[in-house]
Amino acid sequence: MQGTMLYGPGDVRFEERPDPKIIEPTDAILKVSAACVCGSDLWPYRGIAQIDGPTPMGHEYVGIVEEVGSEVKHIKPGQFVVGSFWASDNTCPICQAGYQSRCVDARPIGAEGAQAPFLRVPLADGTLVATPELPPDDLIPSLLSASDVLGTGWFAADASEAGPGKTVVVVGDGAVGLCAMIAARQIGAERIIAISRHDDRQKLALEFGATDIVTERGDEGVAKIKDMTGGLGAHSVVEAVGTQESMMQAIHSARPGGHVGFVGVTHGVELPGMDLFWATVHLHGGPAPVRRYLPELLDLIWNQKINPGKVFDLSLPLDQVAEGYRAMNERRAIKTLLRP
Amino acid sequence: MQGTMLYGPGDVRFEERPDPKIIEPTDAILKVSAACVCGSDLWPYRGIAQIDGPTPMGHEYVGIVEEVGSEVKHIKPGQFVVGSFWASDNTCPICQAGYQSRCVDARPIGAEGAQAPFLRVPLADGTLVATPELPPDDLIPSLLSASDVLGTGWFAADASEAGPGKTVVVVGDGAVGLCAMIAARQIGAERIIAISRHDDRQKLALEFGATDIVTERGDEGVAKIKDMTGGLGAHSVVEAVGTQESMMQAIHSARPGGHVGFVGVTHGVELPGMDLFWATVHLHGGPAPVRRYLPELLDLIWNQKINPGKVFDLSLPLDQVAEGYRAMNERRAIKTLLRP
Repeated sequence: MQGTMLYGPGDVRFEERPDPKIIEPTDAILKVSAACVCGSDLWPYRGIAQIDGPTPMGHEYVGIVEEVGSEVKHIKPGQFVVGSFWASDNTCPICQAGYQSRCVDARPIGAEGAQAPFLRVPLADGTLVATPELPPDDLIPSLLSASDVLGTGWFAADASEAGPGKTVVVVGDGAVGLCAMIAARQIGAERIIAISRHDDRQKLALEFGATDIVTERGDEGVAKIKDMTGGLGAHSVVEAVGTQESMMQAIHSARPGGHVGFVGVTHGVELPGMDLFWATVHLHGGPAPVRRYLPELLDLIWNQKINPGKVFDLSLPLDQVAEGYRAMNERRAIKTLLRP
Repeated sequence: MQGTMLYGPGDVRFEERPDPKIIEPTDAILKVSAACVCGSDLWPYRGIAQIDGPTPMGHEYVGIVEEVGSEVKHIKPGQFVVGSFWASDNTCPICQAGYQSRCVDARPIGAEGAQAPFLRVPLADGTLVATPELPPDDLIPSLLSASDVLGTGWFAADASEAGPGKTVVVVGDGAVGLCAMIAARQIGAERIIAISRHDDRQKLALEFGATDIVTERGDEGVAKIKDMTGGLGAHSVVEAVGTQESMMQAIHSARPGGHVGFVGVTHGVELPGMDLFWATVHLHGGPAPVRRYLPELLDLIWNQKINPGKVFDLSLPLDQVAEGYRAMNERRAIKTLLRP
């Protein structure tokens, strides 16, 4: 088959790769129906995260099960499935506590490379969730979003304890931040403040449930949130960027006793202990345990209660994947969907 | 009156100071029955935290109400009271949410200097809790501990979500760490692992409820905890030191999804974002909202369910306060009680 490889900063190639095969008896092989480019793929694309030679790319996927290993009991060939970007056994104590992304046997799907027509998914029974039947084509973007950005935004909103009566600030207007707004709305938050400077993203934020838009960043953004909350700060803050500025803006925007859910991959961030001490917030985050939320998210999407697929504002044939990276890197697209 | 002043590193003086007076109508003046030296007092004593000229010292206190301001409604002269080391109105939204140490009108008792025979307590109605009657002398050490170290240890154990079925690690065997063990035991934790290298503190830890003692620190300490928890890490970790090493030991000792409660004042600590991201723990801490716990703690002490006063292993007349600092600084004492 042909699949996506990153050779170095800005150098994405769609080239011949070996067809994936069952390696372990718990594996499944999927025929990928759709994949996409993640904000986190831009870290190595921009040279901020290092890669060790040519690297398969992509960790978000939906598809039809082509083949399963001998120990796969629940997932069947022919099913349409959505999986997390971390494979997990879903049975260990960490999975049982809801932290499948940190399963004792967790495997990154990124290592397999989902921006390809076929994909090996390890630990298929623990990782994949099947839809009730084959989905109509117009549900595929939303189902794909559940594989990472929706699940990650959901975890962030959950970690921020968004809920009835709460004022929630979302720092970051990328796909994850926007999905966190869907989550905060669904969970029942009273007020959802989007930090956003881009017209198209502001529009989508309001459509997804944001009640207010704030354009200020850093300390000015914090001051604005304090102003809007009687000087107290927000109950809940989602951090979906991963820079020093965005982390500190998130922490300082929360009131004492408030909750900050962070899911931005924190490159080069150092949190000053004294700031954290005096903030007196709850801080929780990391790689989102998307698998925990998949059954609920698939149900909401299947019944058209939410439409997170709107975060995909560019759709390309898989062989034009390099343009998909360029468009996101240049902020011409929020998120690129790829169809094999 | 004579009270305690710090002039610089190692320079504690017991000298003439003005008698405290009612300044605001919400103030109370206490005749101090007992005060003490806090681990955090050692930061400026050691020159690690800077002071700006001669500074009154002490923020832990119990005493008898001598006089109240015209707007004090609930606290009455003659009552025996315990208060937090932060004065708070106990009515603002932050207080109502249980974060009285971050009250919108919070005032540090340290600024008044509790290592003295008399003390002004601002916001008396919100800050002080009275005992049912004058306590017997042997309850005074435990009641005094509730003013800070017990309340702080309790908050840390609560923030770490210690509870039935949980394995709790306590990093730090000072008075706060030891009190966190009392809390973890009371809250019903299954296993309480004390990180301690000192014989006398290990003994007290076991008496307070620790089930295991670990002497290793840093990465070795983390490896030991992983060994003891089937490779997973602890459910709950209390951090009661405040150094880079202790914070990282605490974070790395918790399992993914676990909870770290930190109350050590974090001088010079910088938390690497990537470590925090991959740890996937809940992190919560700061200046403990002791006031939240005071009614429950006073009840437990009054009914002799707990005996946290044992953390005081040195008792001195107030005018020997300088020796109290020296003994703690040289680790000859865990905590020094001072009687005016």
